[in-house]
Amino acid sequence: MTAPRTVSLQEKFHLFSEHWSPKVVAELNGQQVKLVKISGEFVWHSHEAEDELFLVTRGRLLMRFRDSEQRVGVGEFIVVPRGVEHQPVAETEEVWMVLFEPATTVNTGTAGGERTVTILENL
Amino acid sequence: MTAPRTVSLQEKFHLFSEHWSPKVVAELNGQQVKLVKISGEFVWHSHEAEDELFLVTRGRLLMRFRDSEQRVGVGEFIVVPRGVEHQPVAETEEVWMVLFEPATTVNTGTAGGERTVTILENL
Repeated sequence: MTAPRTVSLQEKFHLFSEHWSPKVVAELNGQQVKLVKISGEFVWHSHEAEDELFLVTRGRLLMRFRDSEQRVGVGEFIVVPRGVEHQPVAETEEVWMVLFEPATTVNTGTAGGERTVTILENL
Repeated sequence: MTAPRTVSLQEKFHLFSEHWSPKVVAELNGQQVKLVKISGEFVWHSHEAEDELFLVTRGRLLMRFRDSEQRVGVGEFIVVPRGVEHQPVAETEEVWMVLFEPATTVNTGTAGGERTVTILENL
């Protein structure tokens, strides 16, 4: 086994620029740490068996639920439990987020469609 | 079920001041997100079945392993795999960290001893 190494979120964020395409930066206990940059609105979706954590490091996220919404700024996070329909929206031009979720999580959940990313790049 | 709410790391960090006593701020997929403030050195220990992620938000952490060491600054993280002996040390007067690890994780791992915290407060 290789010795554990420090990972810089900033360095990793600067390795990519595309939106809505999560990159895996760590894996532990069957969970993954992913970085994602977003702009505009995503599709409404939910995950059958996965809770998701969104931690914002740049910009401001609007997380829409069917009957409420929450804003998430830098240094803030929100947990979306499995089964809860949500729509992530970038309130600022671009939002950078760290995701903590099971390795099995598909970005579009049960909604599927063209914005589904099936193979995630490791950074 | 209550609607998901945004959580501010800064607000939560300002709710406590004691060292080496992790507070739980979220739970998802059997994992917990904990906040901890540390000062000085902790005991050498390892976890039999849990990988641990340490994300630094203030100060600088020195993570000692038996034959290497890593420094972890603000905005950086390190994953310590299960079974790997480690000693967290605050290199600055105080270090604030976000931990992401299974709910079963005991702070002192298999080492036990007086610094073990058995009941974790929820913030």
